[in-house]
Amino acid sequence: MDLHIVIDRNEPLGEQLLRQLRGLIRSGRLATGTQLPPTRLLAQQLGLARQTVAEAYERLTLEQLIEAGRGRGSFVRALPAGEGPRPAATPVRLASAERIAAFQALPVPLLRFADSPLARWDFVGGSPEPALFPHEDWRRHLHAAQRALGQGGAHAPPAGHTALREAIAEHLAFARGVRCTAADVIVTQGAQQAFDLLVRVLAGPGDVVAVESPGYPPVAGLLQAHGARIVPVPVDAQGLVTDALPPEAKLVYTTPAHQFPLGVAMTAARRRALLSWAARTGAIVIEDDYDSEFRFEGQPRDSLQGLDTDGRVAFVGSFSKTLAPSLRLGYVISPPALRDALLNAKHLADVHGPSLLQHALARFMAEGNYRKHLRRCVAEYARRRERLMAGFADTLAPWLRLLPAEAGFHQAALFMPGLAIDGTQLAALARRVDVGLYPLQAMGAQQDGLLMGFGRIPPEGIEQALGRMAELLGAAA
Amino acid sequence: MDLHIVIDRNEPLGEQLLRQLRGLIRSGRLATGTQLPPTRLLAQQLGLARQTVAEAYERLTLEQLIEAGRGRGSFVRALPAGEGPRPAATPVRLASAERIAAFQALPVPLLRFADSPLARWDFVGGSPEPALFPHEDWRRHLHAAQRALGQGGAHAPPAGHTALREAIAEHLAFARGVRCTAADVIVTQGAQQAFDLLVRVLAGPGDVVAVESPGYPPVAGLLQAHGARIVPVPVDAQGLVTDALPPEAKLVYTTPAHQFPLGVAMTAARRRALLSWAARTGAIVIEDDYDSEFRFEGQPRDSLQGLDTDGRVAFVGSFSKTLAPSLRLGYVISPPALRDALLNAKHLADVHGPSLLQHALARFMAEGNYRKHLRRCVAEYARRRERLMAGFADTLAPWLRLLPAEAGFHQAALFMPGLAIDGTQLAALARRVDVGLYPLQAMGAQQDGLLMGFGRIPPEGIEQALGRMAELLGAAA
Repeated sequence: MDLHIVIDRNEPLGEQLLRQLRGLIRSGRLATGTQLPPTRLLAQQLGLARQTVAEAYERLTLEQLIEAGRGRGSFVRALPAGEGPRPAATPVRLASAERIAAFQALPVPLLRFADSPLARWDFVGGSPEPALFPHEDWRRHLHAAQRALGQGGAHAPPAGHTALREAIAEHLAFARGVRCTAADVIVTQGAQQAFDLLVRVLAGPGDVVAVESPGYPPVAGLLQAHGARIVPVPVDAQGLVTDALPPEAKLVYTTPAHQFPLGVAMTAARRRALLSWAARTGAIVIEDDYDSEFRFEGQPRDSLQGLDTDGRVAFVGSFSKTLAPSLRLGYVISPPALRDALLNAKHLADVHGPSLLQHALARFMAEGNYRKHLRRCVAEYARRRERLMAGFADTLAPWLRLLPAEAGFHQAALFMPGLAIDGTQLAALARRVDVGLYPLQAMGAQQDGLLMGFGRIPPEGIEQALGRMAELLGAAA
Repeated sequence: MDLHIVIDRNEPLGEQLLRQLRGLIRSGRLATGTQLPPTRLLAQQLGLARQTVAEAYERLTLEQLIEAGRGRGSFVRALPAGEGPRPAATPVRLASAERIAAFQALPVPLLRFADSPLARWDFVGGSPEPALFPHEDWRRHLHAAQRALGQGGAHAPPAGHTALREAIAEHLAFARGVRCTAADVIVTQGAQQAFDLLVRVLAGPGDVVAVESPGYPPVAGLLQAHGARIVPVPVDAQGLVTDALPPEAKLVYTTPAHQFPLGVAMTAARRRALLSWAARTGAIVIEDDYDSEFRFEGQPRDSLQGLDTDGRVAFVGSFSKTLAPSLRLGYVISPPALRDALLNAKHLADVHGPSLLQHALARFMAEGNYRKHLRRCVAEYARRRERLMAGFADTLAPWLRLLPAEAGFHQAALFMPGLAIDGTQLAALARRVDVGLYPLQAMGAQQDGLLMGFGRIPPEGIEQALGRMAELLGAAA
């Protein structure tokens, strides 16, 4: 038996042994009934005097953690009442019980997808192709950043590494028509933290926040956690229906470039209407620029932020879709009026993000690797998108139609009327034939349909997966 | 003039040029009055047809972004009203104005220390010696983690990388007598995020939270941000004065191992009193195990969490003091009753932390490098601590006395009564002779004194710095 005990010659030996044995027993790593090694053997293994080990066993016996068993050997006892591998899971009375229960009940559905294993052919949304990750370039910049940072690294400014903020500002001015300088950029732990900071600063308990419906579930969960009053606003073929915005909203969450989950882009008229509504009501608009970097057709549309002359739009983006979610790198371009408040919120939330990854990304962007990488991604996703559209037209036309989308790496598909099966049922059947499908209803859609992401399915798998779907739909009809 | 324009042969050329020029002007990188290169020259530099450049200039002229100047050349115009390098900083009416102002006014004092340059001899607290950072070992594990992660990396579980949670649980069971398994560990972005998640789940607006006074300012700022009602509870030579705890508190924040800033350890009697008070009131206790890994004398004291049989203590620690703050790695050991709620809070706050650093730290700990590194740190800080204590006795005895502390890398010093100078005045004078001092009053202390951190001052600098302090104090008397 290997007890995983480490003895340090520079510290009192018996005390170390005792503490480690106690830890192993109390934490449950040595289970009740386990026999401890004989004192002579353990002393030999650890290079200790036998007396030292015997004393530790004696102490553990006094502490009722071990007991002598049938004449020879020492055995781990059942832990006394109130002790256990960890504090008892039995309910204790807590003053904050209601609040705790409310947090336990929060909906955090969509991001959980990532925890569950993917199907062989999976149309999960929001997850980029891992094979596209630019390993070589990234490794090179990571190592260079590690060398340059040196010295362990003290606390960095809450807004993030200056060179990264400059690179983000430059990229967004070019690629998204965002009007900003590095001073407006706050680097966050993915887009989700940007939303969290904005909600902290803008919407207290009971404040009205308007969200697109159908929409992005993690934002709804977040708003609920902050006690905001959520008002869903419908989306049509032109994007968010601005006429339906509640006048008392302090905050609006929208995805103008590529609506989540329907995929439509907000028209210029709706964008102007949204901005003048915000000017009238004093609301702030969160522009989630969700996967807009992947544009396949049509004129590039500038961001809503680029049209905003008042400073009412907070532009949020991330590198989760273009590089990898595991990097946890995102940003908010703050309107001037919010900047200091957001920086304080970031400072108090977690001080700042890890320096190393920010330095690596700054180098990656400054040397042109990011633009090169985006081009490669767009080419690959364009191939998949064409296969998806062709496959839908060829194979699934009797049952489903794809909504058009100019950008992004998912499209929404709606069921034809009068089918004998709905999205949830189809997703359950599809899972049995190794196809991963995601019903729109789980994202608050009124219409029955599916989110068809093509980040994790190889082009050659698309026809096969659509073929299986057609078989299931044919059999159900 | 280098315009930093990048032309991608796979996209419409004129459109790209126009967008980039527009971005450069709107973002202010091309200032008003700047002359643009002649069309022929720019076309040549970028490998474009001259006509393409001419058309882009024409369009920018129509958009009133550039103008023809005195017969030849094109110049950047002053931006039209409402346009500018970024949205106007002029105040706009915002529905959330009060909330924004409240966030702007939040106190975030202590962590700001890190942004300002250190004095030549600086007694800043909470900042480890960068020269102790284990560069070689860390680089090796970082590179190995990068290779092993491969594949870009999808979303990871909110609780953190399993191997890291196991390593933390094992370390804490051994080193701090914490009773936990990997399932109880939630990896956070430094200790500050652990506090933030706990406050979200446990204390809403108006709820009473007890904090040590004097205490750790970033936690007070955080509580204010969440709208909690803060009740300061005094600290004496035995630690937090448990008799003074407000019965209606839902949460208590305490630093039992090494009180911040006074340095005293909480006695066993006070620990028992705190736990039975919590059992009576239903409050949760946050145990901030602030720099307890650096122990110089006395019996190792187990954590408060190790005494807690009910699951009322949330144990918080970080690697900011033992490795580097820039890593942003911390953790909370959650009582069972809070675990699901805390995981939801983490999930909604930022989904999870960056995978790479968690994988690297897991390897670093599992291979014994962390324990080895801690021993090295303790040896170095012990040297500095001895010099500090000897220096105070030799040099500063007429004016200041050090409070005893068994652990941690700072001690508090109190002024003798009746001096003509206080901590704030002394700190201001000391700065002029390149000595960094930090008055206790800024941390809410009633007594006048100084926080004497020895993380950033080399042993050989300590006598020199104390000598300069003695000169200043002598001159002021």
